[in-house]
Amino acid sequence: MKVVIIGGTAAGPKTAARLRRLMQNAEITIVEQGDMISFGACGMPFYLGRLIPQFDSLYSTSYGVARDSQFFQSRKDVRVMTGCRAVTINRDQKRVQIVNQINQEYSELEYDYLVLTTGAEAVIPPIKGIDLPGVFKLHKPQDVQRIQEYLNAGGVKSVAIIGAGVIGMEVADALAARRMKVTVCEAGQQVLPKLVDADMARLIERQMKQRKIELYLNCRAEAFNAGSDGKVTSISTGSGELDAEAVVVAAGVRPRVELARAAGLTIADSGAIKVDAYLQTSDPCIFAAGDCASQVNQISGREVYIPLASTANKQGRVVANNIAGLKTEFSAVTGTTVLQSFDLNIGRTGLGEQEAIMQGYEVISAIVAGHDAPHYYPLHATVTIKLIADRNSGKLLGTQVCGAGEAIKRLDVLGTAMKFGACLKDIANLDMGYAPPFAEAMDIAIHAANTLENKRAGLAHGLSPLAVEQMKKEIPLCFLDIREADEIQAKPLQEQNVLVIPAAELRRRYNEIPEDMPVIVFCGLGIRSYDATCFLHSVGLDNAAYLEGGLSGW
Amino acid sequence: MKVVIIGGTAAGPKTAARLRRLMQNAEITIVEQGDMISFGACGMPFYLGRLIPQFDSLYSTSYGVARDSQFFQSRKDVRVMTGCRAVTINRDQKRVQIVNQINQEYSELEYDYLVLTTGAEAVIPPIKGIDLPGVFKLHKPQDVQRIQEYLNAGGVKSVAIIGAGVIGMEVADALAARRMKVTVCEAGQQVLPKLVDADMARLIERQMKQRKIELYLNCRAEAFNAGSDGKVTSISTGSGELDAEAVVVAAGVRPRVELARAAGLTIADSGAIKVDAYLQTSDPCIFAAGDCASQVNQISGREVYIPLASTANKQGRVVANNIAGLKTEFSAVTGTTVLQSFDLNIGRTGLGEQEAIMQGYEVISAIVAGHDAPHYYPLHATVTIKLIADRNSGKLLGTQVCGAGEAIKRLDVLGTAMKFGACLKDIANLDMGYAPPFAEAMDIAIHAANTLENKRAGLAHGLSPLAVEQMKKEIPLCFLDIREADEIQAKPLQEQNVLVIPAAELRRRYNEIPEDMPVIVFCGLGIRSYDATCFLHSVGLDNAAYLEGGLSGW
Repeated sequence: MKVVIIGGTAAGPKTAARLRRLMQNAEITIVEQGDMISFGACGMPFYLGRLIPQFDSLYSTSYGVARDSQFFQSRKDVRVMTGCRAVTINRDQKRVQIVNQINQEYSELEYDYLVLTTGAEAVIPPIKGIDLPGVFKLHKPQDVQRIQEYLNAGGVKSVAIIGAGVIGMEVADALAARRMKVTVCEAGQQVLPKLVDADMARLIERQMKQRKIELYLNCRAEAFNAGSDGKVTSISTGSGELDAEAVVVAAGVRPRVELARAAGLTIADSGAIKVDAYLQTSDPCIFAAGDCASQVNQISGREVYIPLASTANKQGRVVANNIAGLKTEFSAVTGTTVLQSFDLNIGRTGLGEQEAIMQGYEVISAIVAGHDAPHYYPLHATVTIKLIADRNSGKLLGTQVCGAGEAIKRLDVLGTAMKFGACLKDIANLDMGYAPPFAEAMDIAIHAANTLENKRAGLAHGLSPLAVEQMKKEIPLCFLDIREADEIQAKPLQEQNVLVIPAAELRRRYNEIPEDMPVIVFCGLGIRSYDATCFLHSVGLDNAAYLEGGLSGW
Repeated sequence: MKVVIIGGTAAGPKTAARLRRLMQNAEITIVEQGDMISFGACGMPFYLGRLIPQFDSLYSTSYGVARDSQFFQSRKDVRVMTGCRAVTINRDQKRVQIVNQINQEYSELEYDYLVLTTGAEAVIPPIKGIDLPGVFKLHKPQDVQRIQEYLNAGGVKSVAIIGAGVIGMEVADALAARRMKVTVCEAGQQVLPKLVDADMARLIERQMKQRKIELYLNCRAEAFNAGSDGKVTSISTGSGELDAEAVVVAAGVRPRVELARAAGLTIADSGAIKVDAYLQTSDPCIFAAGDCASQVNQISGREVYIPLASTANKQGRVVANNIAGLKTEFSAVTGTTVLQSFDLNIGRTGLGEQEAIMQGYEVISAIVAGHDAPHYYPLHATVTIKLIADRNSGKLLGTQVCGAGEAIKRLDVLGTAMKFGACLKDIANLDMGYAPPFAEAMDIAIHAANTLENKRAGLAHGLSPLAVEQMKKEIPLCFLDIREADEIQAKPLQEQNVLVIPAAELRRRYNEIPEDMPVIVFCGLGIRSYDATCFLHSVGLDNAAYLEGGLSGW
């Protein structure tokens, strides 16, 4: 059997490796346009940040051998043609035309099965000066090498990132760690607009401010301007002219589908190649996987495009299984996406709040802050979790996390529960491992689910920071601070109309609270204030609500 | 409504706090035998190890206020009676007789609902000299204070731990971190006998050896011997006399059920108080929760006793809900138990391999080693996962983890999947968050499930280290080392009959491999050797199997 794989980054090599294990006699060929295969592209920002010192390690195995053509040939009996581009697919004759980009020689490869793992390409916005020296994209191995060289050679002290998506945020963090002055321009009204909701984005924006990152939201780059040496020196934007001795454009990616489209394969509404549950395209002899293939969102049932290396690897395996006759489905995705930026662990799975509303759900959500380990354990840190659920069924629809603490573990646990269709009350029963180095006895993930379930049942009266901010603009509010004196002294509440009644005195002093306006109860994490609000409602103060996440999210 | 709660450590205070939020007018009383409530008992080993410097922090809130009687009274309107022991329950009259242990005064408390959270007590084995100065148990707050005082005062340089269960291992680690000479005596044939299987225990025992811990297995303490000052100086054991200037006996716990038994409540086969799904005892007005209550194992359906603070907290919430009329079930448990010891993160959920076999399952298992993050990311570390599944259905029955890497996240994800009845192929589809700080593109948890599914399908031919050790005793084996030359030089394989063929040469040199004996293929983690074994089978070497976990587990 002849199998040709077009694209050698993640899904392609994975397909080849798995297929070789399943079919020792198949003829397997990988055609790769670039000169490297099986490259750890997700490591590029960390290489820029010098956390990964050796570029080579991004394409080596853990035992130090380069994953090059020779590697695949000798160990996997897989032929790799680097520097070769697939030009056309002749589906009738099952042949792919290839051009060698060095000598421009054309050739043809026969296939029984063709696997398209053509990946994605960086979106290059049509900005004046985009080709200036010092303006870079970050997508291919060569890109990161060029940026590194430019930064190392030139005494570059200020850099601007265009786009506050995942890659933009990782690069901003990496370069700030090198003590460069970092400016981030984002056309949307928040950082990570495709990843987290506005309320969670605020936590990240606050952290960037503390780290002296210049963040411009609602800001479009209009032109890159050169100095006398022809290199970029500034950016013209709607927010004025910004200095930048180097620019990284991180404006997102789109699937590479030209080859598939020209061959008449169906393209999904998401813009990527349409595949069925077996990852077969509209031609059953052609599979597609990785960043060029469309997925189905498990929660919405819609076609989506969420390019992820994790998905690519899982899909490569599924494609190999199906070629080898082990009929295997690739399931719908929840699209779990994570990053570390400015010491925050950030992630999302499932639907965002607006997305869920647009899907027709009656949505209920809560923001919960807590610790990843007991406060008495020295290494504990804060995690904030936003849960989004269906008000009617209690079914979990989406989770977002952010914090210096071990947030991604909670995201993975909640995402796993969601994969199995969990309702909030199912999460209350999860057996998560507890010992002081790892969690609180009631893990923050379980606490978050309990909180939202309480809210759904009308037992918890919480408001998100954004909701309180909105109310504040419209009507007078009483801010009831129930923290301890030393906490207030360390971080006083900067609001008008603050009433201080320590939690220990609330049960005898509640009659000091005004009844004629909404009362927002404040504490550190939103736990004491939830408790207090239950009491306040029992004495008729139905106007009271607690600030979700407490001061940690305000 | 009058609610009396007997026991104030974890489940009791949780019941009280939740119940107060649900029923502001209930009369809630906690009766606690000791003088502290809501004590973070799980932090005790870390206090001994000086990782937690302040004893006070174990009973304080995160905002620095002691969780004492005054705290519960003023903030939760919960009455706490410390130093009081419940003597008898009069179920007909719904009264509990209480004795104040200081003045020996008796009194009675009426209840509408009684909640038994009487906890567990340390098992004290009947060893001669158990009461000697310097011989301690570690169960109550006073215990840890006494040990700390003894160690600090006396220039104690060597300490022995009796029992290599979770607490014993945590204490051994804590005291070794203080640079004491630590001896561990375990009556069973492995460390953590109730937690992990023998093959996983080996990994921990190896680490203890590297840390110069004197570990005696199959070793019973027969007597504690005193020196001239009357303090313990040595232990007589079947393995000889062992020096010890202090001893911590960590021989396990048993549920405190005397009060319940005397009141005629049903005791489960597990030895703990029998409760239904609503945590009601055989008397519907009496609930039991936490370390005194029996649970049902989700996988086996059997009554079990797995005392955990995480369970206690969840149960306290369920009891409060049921008292308040919010009918809530506490589900069957998978018993997830975790600890950190000697820099290894160790845990288990579900059934062990022998336990699963005894339940009548046709069991298949695999041991998989890998990294928690990409090898090029500087903070990656190893995680070893053992999965136990039903051979017929592929249903996951149990998971064990061990490693310096982030093993507990994987345990929690796999445990969550198991809670929802996952089969191995469901785990292949999990959307776990991937970015270099957090995971490999194919997370080790997913890789483990894929490996066992391969084994189940006859595609992977792996043997556990224990199986290979056993075979080695019975028949001659060929050990085929396919690692790189530098790897072999750094850590050569110390076996007879080693054949070295690097992976890159295997496809042309396989005819050097003997056909007349089993071939065990070795590599670093068991990944390359799995790949190689697929090839060897394809050329007729059906005698070949790879060592699961590779050298990392040998």
